[in-house]
Amino acid sequence: MGVNSDDPPVDTEEAIMRATYRALCNHGYANLTMQAIADEFDKTKGVLHYHYDTKQDLLVSFLEYLLSAFQENIAVDGADPAERLEALIETLLFGPPERGRFDHWELTTAMLEIRSEAPHNNEFRRQLSRNYETVEATVVAIVEAGIEQGIFRDVDPEQVATLLLASINGARIYQVTLERDDVAEVTRSSLDAILEHWLYCPDELDSGANADGTVGED
Amino acid sequence: MGVNSDDPPVDTEEAIMRATYRALCNHGYANLTMQAIADEFDKTKGVLHYHYDTKQDLLVSFLEYLLSAFQENIAVDGADPAERLEALIETLLFGPPERGRFDHWELTTAMLEIRSEAPHNNEFRRQLSRNYETVEATVVAIVEAGIEQGIFRDVDPEQVATLLLASINGARIYQVTLERDDVAEVTRSSLDAILEHWLYCPDELDSGANADGTVGED
Repeated sequence: MGVNSDDPPVDTEEAIMRATYRALCNHGYANLTMQAIADEFDKTKGVLHYHYDTKQDLLVSFLEYLLSAFQENIAVDGADPAERLEALIETLLFGPPERGRFDHWELTTAMLEIRSEAPHNNEFRRQLSRNYETVEATVVAIVEAGIEQGIFRDVDPEQVATLLLASINGARIYQVTLERDDVAEVTRSSLDAILEHWLYCPDELDSGANADGTVGED
Repeated sequence: MGVNSDDPPVDTEEAIMRATYRALCNHGYANLTMQAIADEFDKTKGVLHYHYDTKQDLLVSFLEYLLSAFQENIAVDGADPAERLEALIETLLFGPPERGRFDHWELTTAMLEIRSEAPHNNEFRRQLSRNYETVEATVVAIVEAGIEQGIFRDVDPEQVATLLLASINGARIYQVTLERDDVAEVTRSSLDAILEHWLYCPDELDSGANADGTVGED
């Protein structure tokens, strides 16, 4: 299981969320019944129903919970736009440098299953959209800062954000659904090549900015 | 429904596949029972069981059926690698120029639901992998031809293929799961920018090769 067993005691709602995560990982979305969740939980099914009127309500809270874990994970600091962008790509593709609440590939699988319900579920779609917009705004802000500082060319920040997020989303989904374990790695090297040719200013490239990520401010 | 109503009469297996597609579109994977499929079918549930021992067997055949429709769609002709690559991107993102057997976004949604089962299903994963490898080989062959003809730089064809396929997969999934209808369009413009900066040789760019897609052979 991806949840750390040495975590401190948790409240009931957190315990229900973790039980839902385990049930989802073990049984898949199609078999995610209230009973399957209760089986992963040290209290009765009645407690689930006390906290959530319907399975749908529980799953909406669960998606909020996953997305908040995700947003914690992608917080990247640092003043240098090139470093921040590379750290963000690394975290989105492979998970946070310090292990988060969940195993990265388990979380990717769980998110894929929830996502596959979104075409039929307005509430899921709304939450996923807000999440997307938050991450997109993060990338756009980094790219704008890089252009401002003369590190990046005058690219369209929205184009960069869309391509990064779509390729990372696609690569993570391939990674858990294909018999290939190199898709995320190859995607990272492709994104490195793209940043080099599309984003970084040639002068900065010549000074080795892309190789070690330590670009000086202009 | 995406299936053309003016198609000629079909055999029983084709009729079962179409019924499965309709049931999947109407009810989602989580509610895709043999009864739901039978309800979309003009014969009895017994006929389903006569052809397929289990729902699992039926779904394996259904995935083969979807992937074969997909492979028909991505067949691109033409001698010029730049044109072939752009036609392939267009078809993968938006569907074939002449309407195929299915509506493109319905097919994307159905494939997403099947894909979300793949982490738990070896047979689905195997089929999706073979499909991925076929499309990947198509992109690699186009890129190799472009390098050979001096139209493309000496890029790594596998990196190009992985990035194109991951970003298109991710963009299609965003398109059907977010409250945004522009992700596929913005991804196309991002891919145009990438091809321009990463792939096309500068000389060819200067001669307008990227703008009208009519690159002369060297």
